Amino acid sequence: MSSTYGEKIKISVFGESHGNGIGVVIDGLSAGAEIDIEGVLAQMKRRAPGRDKTATPRKESDLPEVLSGMLGNTLTGAPLCAVIKNTNTKSGDYSNLLECPRPGHSDYTAFVKYGGANDIRGGGHFSGRITAPLVFAGAICRQLLEKRGIKIAAHIKSIGCVNDSGFDPTEISDELIGRLNSSSFALIDENREEAMRAEVESARTALDSVGGTIECAVTGLTPGIGEPMFDGVEGEIAKAVFGVPAVKGIEFGKGFELAKMRGSQSNDPFVYKDGRIVTETNNCGGILGGITNGMPVIFTAAIKPTPSIAQKQKTVNLKTGKNAELEIKGRHDPCIVPRAVPVIEAVTAIALINLI
Amino acid sequence: MSSTYGEKIKISVFGESHGNGIGVVIDGLSAGAEIDIEGVLAQMKRRAPGRDKTATPRKESDLPEVLSGMLGNTLTGAPLCAVIKNTNTKSGDYSNLLECPRPGHSDYTAFVKYGGANDIRGGGHFSGRITAPLVFAGAICRQLLEKRGIKIAAHIKSIGCVNDSGFDPTEISDELIGRLNSSSFALIDENREEAMRAEVESARTALDSVGGTIECAVTGLTPGIGEPMFDGVEGEIAKAVFGVPAVKGIEFGKGFELAKMRGSQSNDPFVYKDGRIVTETNNCGGILGGITNGMPVIFTAAIKPTPSIAQKQKTVNLKTGKNAELEIKGRHDPCIVPRAVPVIEAVTAIALINLI
Amino acid sequence: MSSTYGEKIKISVFGESHGNGIGVVIDGLSAGAEIDIEGVLAQMKRRAPGRDKTATPRKESDLPEVLSGMLGNTLTGAPLCAVIKNTNTKSGDYSNLLECPRPGHSDYTAFVKYGGANDIRGGGHFSGRITAPLVFAGAICRQLLEKRGIKIAAHIKSIGCVNDSGFDPTEISDELIGRLNSSSFALIDENREEAMRAEVESARTALDSVGGTIECAVTGLTPGIGEPMFDGVEGEIAKAVFGVPAVKGIEFGKGFELAKMRGSQSNDPFVYKDGRIVTETNNCGGILGGITNGMPVIFTAAIKPTPSIAQKQKTVNLKTGKNAELEIKGRHDPCIVPRAVPVIEAVTAIALINLI
Amino acid sequence: MSSTYGEKIKISVFGESHGNGIGVVIDGLSAGAEIDIEGVLAQMKRRAPGRDKTATPRKESDLPEVLSGMLGNTLTGAPLCAVIKNTNTKSGDYSNLLECPRPGHSDYTAFVKYGGANDIRGGGHFSGRITAPLVFAGAICRQLLEKRGIKIAAHIKSIGCVNDSGFDPTEISDELIGRLNSSSFALIDENREEAMRAEVESARTALDSVGGTIECAVTGLTPGIGEPMFDGVEGEIAKAVFGVPAVKGIEFGKGFELAKMRGSQSNDPFVYKDGRIVTETNNCGGILGGITNGMPVIFTAAIKPTPSIAQKQKTVNLKTGKNAELEIKGRHDPCIVPRAVPVIEAVTAIALINLI
Repeated sequence: MSSTYGEKIKISVFGESHGNGIGVVIDGLSAGAEIDIEGVLAQMKRRAPGRDKTATPRKESDLPEVLSGMLGNTLTGAPLCAVIKNTNTKSGDYSNLLECPRPGHSDYTAFVKYGGANDIRGGGHFSGRITAPLVFAGAICRQLLEKRGIKIAAHIKSIGCVNDSGFDPTEISDELIGRLNSSSFALIDENREEAMRAEVESARTALDSVGGTIECAVTGLTPGIGEPMFDGVEGEIAKAVFGVPAVKGIEFGKGFELAKMRGSQSNDPFVYKDGRIVTETNNCGGILGGITNGMPVIFTAAIKPTPSIAQKQKTVNLKTGKNAELEIKGRHDPCIVPRAVPVIEAVTAIALINLI
Repeated sequence: MSSTYGEKIKISVFGESHGNGIGVVIDGLSAGAEIDIEGVLAQMKRRAPGRDKTATPRKESDLPEVLSGMLGNTLTGAPLCAVIKNTNTKSGDYSNLLECPRPGHSDYTAFVKYGGANDIRGGGHFSGRITAPLVFAGAICRQLLEKRGIKIAAHIKSIGCVNDSGFDPTEISDELIGRLNSSSFALIDENREEAMRAEVESARTALDSVGGTIECAVTGLTPGIGEPMFDGVEGEIAKAVFGVPAVKGIEFGKGFELAKMRGSQSNDPFVYKDGRIVTETNNCGGILGGITNGMPVIFTAAIKPTPSIAQKQKTVNLKTGKNAELEIKGRHDPCIVPRAVPVIEAVTAIALINLI
Repeated sequence: MSSTYGEKIKISVFGESHGNGIGVVIDGLSAGAEIDIEGVLAQMKRRAPGRDKTATPRKESDLPEVLSGMLGNTLTGAPLCAVIKNTNTKSGDYSNLLECPRPGHSDYTAFVKYGGANDIRGGGHFSGRITAPLVFAGAICRQLLEKRGIKIAAHIKSIGCVNDSGFDPTEISDELIGRLNSSSFALIDENREEAMRAEVESARTALDSVGGTIECAVTGLTPGIGEPMFDGVEGEIAKAVFGVPAVKGIEFGKGFELAKMRGSQSNDPFVYKDGRIVTETNNCGGILGGITNGMPVIFTAAIKPTPSIAQKQKTVNLKTGKNAELEIKGRHDPCIVPRAVPVIEAVTAIALINLI
Repeated sequence: MSSTYGEKIKISVFGESHGNGIGVVIDGLSAGAEIDIEGVLAQMKRRAPGRDKTATPRKESDLPEVLSGMLGNTLTGAPLCAVIKNTNTKSGDYSNLLECPRPGHSDYTAFVKYGGANDIRGGGHFSGRITAPLVFAGAICRQLLEKRGIKIAAHIKSIGCVNDSGFDPTEISDELIGRLNSSSFALIDENREEAMRAEVESARTALDSVGGTIECAVTGLTPGIGEPMFDGVEGEIAKAVFGVPAVKGIEFGKGFELAKMRGSQSNDPFVYKDGRIVTETNNCGGILGGITNGMPVIFTAAIKPTPSIAQKQKTVNLKTGKNAELEIKGRHDPCIVPRAVPVIEAVTAIALINLI
């Protein structure tokens, strides 16, 4: 009961990093919609590893094979299954992790939960690689949302202490969305790229890693989407976003800043503008009472630094029952944030399509 | 599909602020456990209004009647239903909200969603009053968790710009938990109470309101609880916590601070201590890969300021289609944070019992 | 996880026969629809006990109080809770059942499942009385379905060896539906009533009980409702109908007769009639591949004889660990079939509203 | 929301008869259990086509590739995905069905539901071929159940008017179960095989098909499994069994015969036998109040004749809007019942593992 999501559109993700293959089943898609498969692949390419120095040098073609649910480019209404074969695996690198769990990683908790039977190679089902089928599923869902005028874009809000500009919460242009959606290092202010890459490179050369934040916006949502209480938009998006490895926080609109505000500052005044009801500000991130108010939905997710670092670390040896030291081998991203951008967009699409 | 939560223990909350009654059905409770009903009422009293100047002067006895599922003090295994009758309602106060939605409140989004058929009186199903049955259900779940050695405590981490101390993330004493659990203004450092109350009083006299944060800790969780991906502990707790009105953010462990860290700082080293595996720090909030690691689970929620303030505010008139001004009458909390503490504990219990 | 049903419209039934009250929460109802509460009460009256000699002499007013979800006669969109207080209980009658489980009843299985903590009085949560809130919920759902032209009617197809005529599976008039819906002893051929009542009376005077079958039809369903495989119309209706105590079988269309047929007999030929596609026969009961074909959906449920009979029966004594004899006291229906008719209609409505 | 089943163990079936592949994802399996993959393949072989004259001559190797969730023979706890490639497809045969739906088949209802976008070739997702991954998933679940002493066996109870003996409902030997489990024409009384095969051959030579019934028994279930009302054992099994194409009825224990009985006949007396509580008869099929009573769970499913017959049939032409005649080409089973036996066993396993 772990790797499935959704009631209307059910996503079931499978696969382990060094197994035969990974993939996803998407059940509940409406028949008849045309899918731009090139557009899906473009999103997967944004997440794929091996492109530059911020990412792991492991290269995977990541080409999904659609086994069912599509005839030509058209959804048939039957469950859609896509499979990505694992090809470029170096399983020898992981042998010592069976004894010495990596700090900050799921090695220890998975060991306890699965009694040591889980596939430790490459992190197994906990690997960031499992986000590839998520991006596939999200790309399908995004295309269906776009047919209804709903667009999703995210950007690197910060890496370490280097910040990008934020979205204008009341007005997000299609042009900006288009630019972010096609970028593999998505920034609103592209001048920050150099400083951010320097931050990552600084961590990498120190055999270290660095975290960051991702801000995501959704435009085109009509007011009235979502439910009060437990099926509110915030809860649904949060549940989906915490499904992405390394996410440790989420805030909507001004989020934690709201806690320091007074109501007279935080309340977003309603006004008529061009015949539509809008809010002058958007501190609430487009959601009131769990339900969209017609403004852009905006949230920020906190991504912790990649736990796999090459520095020597303190850990325990589960076999000897003694404290130990660990030097992690294998290929790892010094900063996961740029590649996590399309993943956050993807799970947002998956959450939203279940609310609409 | 809004007001139910859970797969193992299903919580179904019902009621509107000014209707005949509110309550909850809890389905899936194990037969045979004894419930300390006085302990349940004590938790409900912590949330109940009308006690001091930080809260709305509306008084409700809030005494739940158990209709089913208990025989004497023992759970029968059948669904437990508890009902609280609404008695002290002043519905006349809300008449103008049918036309002019309150900024920051769900009036407008509910109007769109329900086409105006929802019960606007007192906020209807969106009222904070609906958290009373949540606290009831949470108190039952907490007692069941406590029988397994699992304890939950929350405190006011901040109101406006006044902060409490935080939990020691590696060591939380039963004594502290007991003290917080019986407090109606729960603080780790009780010396901060005066300053916090002054912050609320300052907002109240300015016809304003103020937000805050609540930190919550869970002790006694064994390692190995939770699932990878979408049913991880973070996602489950987040979904439940966003079910509480006014929550706009959640972070686990160091949360958003992690985004600025390097892996060498954020990774929590494993060590053997008294024969058990623990972590020296607890930046991850007791959760790795969605699964508990045996350390306290710790998270912080951001609570926005109460949107209902007595100041004149800009809004729209849905009837005339013109911009308007609104002065809200009725009884409202200048700061919801102290009363939200037991609610956050309650939904945490509800989330956890579904993971165990 | 026992007494809830549905994903779109969630029904959560609670209560024990001799507890404080029984009732239901219905979550997911659309706001704005008007409910004819008199029509709801009329359906509940059809199920209510104490009317004639086929039924238990226990009288209950069975008047539900709506606590939430309605304002006047209009659904507010919030969860609807209705409560029926238990008033006429004679709990002393059940004391010996704690030791000696009734054959054919759930006493023994509930004892094992709940470790003896369940409320045995009156059958507790297993009592047929718990079908009262089901009829309430079903009546709400039926009214919503009727607004879409969908009608449901059931009749006593047989009691013991006395049969009623069956529905014409290709053509069921609104007039017949209306007559059945308002009858407390629903028959297509009303001339059979005397013989059926004689069958029941014969069982009653022999201190015995008798079973029967109920045939149910749904008209007005457009083709294309339902899903392939596990969420097909047959599976959904079956799951709901087996939720009614005493149901031991269900068949759609010709059901078990189909097993003896050849394809050339059982296949229903398609033809155009008045511009619409219909089938000349309706052996499939209006469902092909789990999906409606636009013809009436027709099924039959088998109801076992009431297990509580006054004759001396063999059983075990759980306390002494020895074989024993049991004479059941208390008030019981010699034939549950007439009262089960509106219950079958109700759960059918609940199942269908989740498919539409 | 169609092709997934289960809350604890989630089964997600995908594939279309003539697409790239079919398969299943099984989420929620416990880590560490060893799977006998040869045993799984043996079950799949029982269902596979092309073995004798009762079945379609289409041959498929049906060899599943496990992509994830197993390391060697051990379950890793991650979702298990198995894929079967489609190899032997003759899609040209189905072209005319786009215009003229086959009577008794899902062509018309799928056309309406999916607006013509579904994959009609070979029946697409509605094909009996999709039961291959069900048997795979069921075989995994069966092995896990067997480790707990629970065994499942089914047999052909009847084909047309030729009957097999029934199970002794109070005593089913492991030897009989073993024999049935390894048979591809499973009968209790093997002397009936010749007559049954003659019945099928008679239908086949008449360009017709024939239906039948399958009786299924489960032994080793402890008392106390299942829930009252909607999650009872009957409802869960029924929902799963109606997920198998061509099933039109299900009855537990004596089923429809109970409707003609009196309570004094149908009630199963409890007695102590060898220190255990058993019932002298088993008319209730091992289930009381939705909960197992420790006796074998027994049910019978009705299977309609294969709708695809070579005789000329009346249908409509969706393109011309006129009545039409249809002669079906392609390869079809004159009797699906023998191959459906392992499928019924499989879905029973899937249902039960979700109840335990």
